[in-house]
Amino acid sequence: MAFASSSAVALANRSATKWISGSRPVRPAVAQPCSRIVTTPKMVAAAKTAAPSELFVAESEWKARESEAVTLPSVTLNDLDMQWLHVLSEGWAAPLKGFMRESEYLQTLHFNSLRLPDGTVSNMSVPIVLAIDDAKKAEIENSSAIALLSPAGKAVAILRSPEVFVHNKEERCARTFGLTDGRHPYAAGIYASGDWLVGGDLEVFTDFKYNDGLDQFRLTPAQLRAEYARRNADAVFVFQLRNPIHNGHALLMTSCRAELQRRGFKNPVLVVHQIGGKVKGDDIPLDVRIRQNERVLAEGVLDPESTILGIFPSPMLYAGPTEVQWHAKARMNAGCQYYIVGRDPAGMKHPNGERDMFDPWHGKSVLGMAPGLEDLEILPFKVAAYDKTIGGMSFFDPSRADDFLFISGTKMRKFAASGETPPDGFMAPTAWKVIVEHYASKK
Amino acid sequence: MAFASSSAVALANRSATKWISGSRPVRPAVAQPCSRIVTTPKMVAAAKTAAPSELFVAESEWKARESEAVTLPSVTLNDLDMQWLHVLSEGWAAPLKGFMRESEYLQTLHFNSLRLPDGTVSNMSVPIVLAIDDAKKAEIENSSAIALLSPAGKAVAILRSPEVFVHNKEERCARTFGLTDGRHPYAAGIYASGDWLVGGDLEVFTDFKYNDGLDQFRLTPAQLRAEYARRNADAVFVFQLRNPIHNGHALLMTSCRAELQRRGFKNPVLVVHQIGGKVKGDDIPLDVRIRQNERVLAEGVLDPESTILGIFPSPMLYAGPTEVQWHAKARMNAGCQYYIVGRDPAGMKHPNGERDMFDPWHGKSVLGMAPGLEDLEILPFKVAAYDKTIGGMSFFDPSRADDFLFISGTKMRKFAASGETPPDGFMAPTAWKVIVEHYASKK
Repeated sequence: MAFASSSAVALANRSATKWISGSRPVRPAVAQPCSRIVTTPKMVAAAKTAAPSELFVAESEWKARESEAVTLPSVTLNDLDMQWLHVLSEGWAAPLKGFMRESEYLQTLHFNSLRLPDGTVSNMSVPIVLAIDDAKKAEIENSSAIALLSPAGKAVAILRSPEVFVHNKEERCARTFGLTDGRHPYAAGIYASGDWLVGGDLEVFTDFKYNDGLDQFRLTPAQLRAEYARRNADAVFVFQLRNPIHNGHALLMTSCRAELQRRGFKNPVLVVHQIGGKVKGDDIPLDVRIRQNERVLAEGVLDPESTILGIFPSPMLYAGPTEVQWHAKARMNAGCQYYIVGRDPAGMKHPNGERDMFDPWHGKSVLGMAPGLEDLEILPFKVAAYDKTIGGMSFFDPSRADDFLFISGTKMRKFAASGETPPDGFMAPTAWKVIVEHYASKK
Repeated sequence: MAFASSSAVALANRSATKWISGSRPVRPAVAQPCSRIVTTPKMVAAAKTAAPSELFVAESEWKARESEAVTLPSVTLNDLDMQWLHVLSEGWAAPLKGFMRESEYLQTLHFNSLRLPDGTVSNMSVPIVLAIDDAKKAEIENSSAIALLSPAGKAVAILRSPEVFVHNKEERCARTFGLTDGRHPYAAGIYASGDWLVGGDLEVFTDFKYNDGLDQFRLTPAQLRAEYARRNADAVFVFQLRNPIHNGHALLMTSCRAELQRRGFKNPVLVVHQIGGKVKGDDIPLDVRIRQNERVLAEGVLDPESTILGIFPSPMLYAGPTEVQWHAKARMNAGCQYYIVGRDPAGMKHPNGERDMFDPWHGKSVLGMAPGLEDLEILPFKVAAYDKTIGGMSFFDPSRADDFLFISGTKMRKFAASGETPPDGFMAPTAWKVIVEHYASKK
């Protein structure tokens, strides 16, 4: 792989941006997936960024840090905090050096981005913060360092030069989710947390092994980059998901790969990237999703040679247009150059049950205009549906709408729960079996 | 006045930015008002921007536009819409060409800024939108232009290439105010408005005369710029307010002027800029504020030669850190180079009555980090209080806290309502009389 400087590409990408409707800035509106994109292979391949800094200390130092930690006041992390520590440690959220300080938190809430010392802008749309209560605040307030303990009580990190600031939970929810409703699954956790936030610089001395049989899928940004090189990739595109893969998704991914090949890339590599952190109760658990995805590769619906199945350690926030930026930015840190975005990314039903929380197309629009994501090319998702004329999934063609059958997530879950088989060609059979077994086990 | 290019200044200001606490970007933290600011007079004088484009059509065209308007479907504006039309028409919100289109609205909500065709970023933190209901949407949907009518039914503008999009009121309130509570005064109006927004390009053919005896204070950005030239200003600083001026405010303003003179400016001119649009019920009405301010100048507490008393036609949103950016950005369009910011700008009590809506220092912090405001120098407000040792207002000195008496807005209103006289030196006596008379007339 030969890459030009990333600033040259930023420039090239910017000049490729089209302006429509007078002075309104938008990325080129691409009606077909992976088509009408004006960049050339050379320009985009050059978008590869430098590997992000990790926040781990050298293993030779771990003992010393553990000894120091014992002397410090400590904060015990909950499971969600640990997932964010994992995210921060591996550099997914670079250039963050730790849990956010107040100036980072405010820039995140108000601008979805951070201005860096060199004047450039880095996208950062979701608060990555550590909440503490009044008693803990009093305990740590005058310390120049604090120890962070795992839920089991093991020291895992030191937070240097901590900075304690007010946690206005209502304002945080409002600006992150566009609502303040405490029934929202992530907001509920915010409201249950302490009234203060503590930020600072992290030194991490633990490895993030979950011993759940899935650790081999938890590739760090650095490991993913090594994997692209090992596979001799000349372009990397990513599909973020928290769902099983049906043949419509697979059609989209293979069609994107074909388009990248038409543009001249020899070996575009796909990262199928499952959310690894906390999801809401009715989402399908990680192990089921991974086993289902493995079957899709094993059956050859996705090409195993050019597909990396990975786990992204972040929890889900269900923050729609705000969160999709985070999903994209973290993958830029993992060296991805193309990001596939669909309808209503990171969306869910409003907690009032009456409507979707977000306009289904705002995620894509906001992603295309977001500061700090100029080097990532957004590949819009085309809707695929079950095409009765071929007995398989096709891209939906509104001129023959009656030929198509939409199988929603809800409908799929109903099929699976009742043991009913979906139409042939909807999903690889052994992959479907994984889902059926999951629902059967829940009964 | 001799001004260098504004891009040279942007660069100079950026290089003057200091970075503290590792990689966290902040403007220089200035503990004393108007001191420790590292820019030189030359650098800042150069910050003068080009006058913004107005959206008025030439008066010779008005008749033709009025005739055309009769042929178009129409939207009748309410008083608040008219205030925003006023704001847009005179260029305070430039580069906006009219009520926001969806891409501008989304960038405002998510990024508090717009990316312009030339790649630069313009601050834009509050939605300037026009709401319509379902019936109106159906009526205008296929038109290439619509007429806008004043509340009295007179055609005042044509909106070209209108774009109708969804008005998610809860999300708009959440991202603008950091709350969704319908008791908030501006949010209440949002919830009462239509379910759709219509944006487009404005052609305006009316003048904004209110015939309330205050029109001479309603200087447009262009008229303000002419006034600076007439007064031979070599620096312009602005004080945004929606309150009477007491001697503590005046002390701050005169001390800022003195500091600008120490930096080498010969004639810094101050704009005392009263909010002219809708304010909440318990704020003091515009005419009372202006008459009070006039007395402050007449008594020489502020120097009439170097002070312009003006009205900024925007309504108040009570959106704290989000709104203070709008207040600053609009004044940049009016050619101001220095903006004085205080404690809790554009803040208010939370509608639940339990606390202030915003952290009192977030406004200043957010303003200092906001994209697109790099050319405006922020002058932090130092707290002044009644100093019993001199019988007048002084900057608060915490080392002798007991010498000071804080006279809050609430306390001032109580004094005024009961006809009680505040301590000598709190406010120019004839200015105080205006306030007492106002409260007496309300009884």
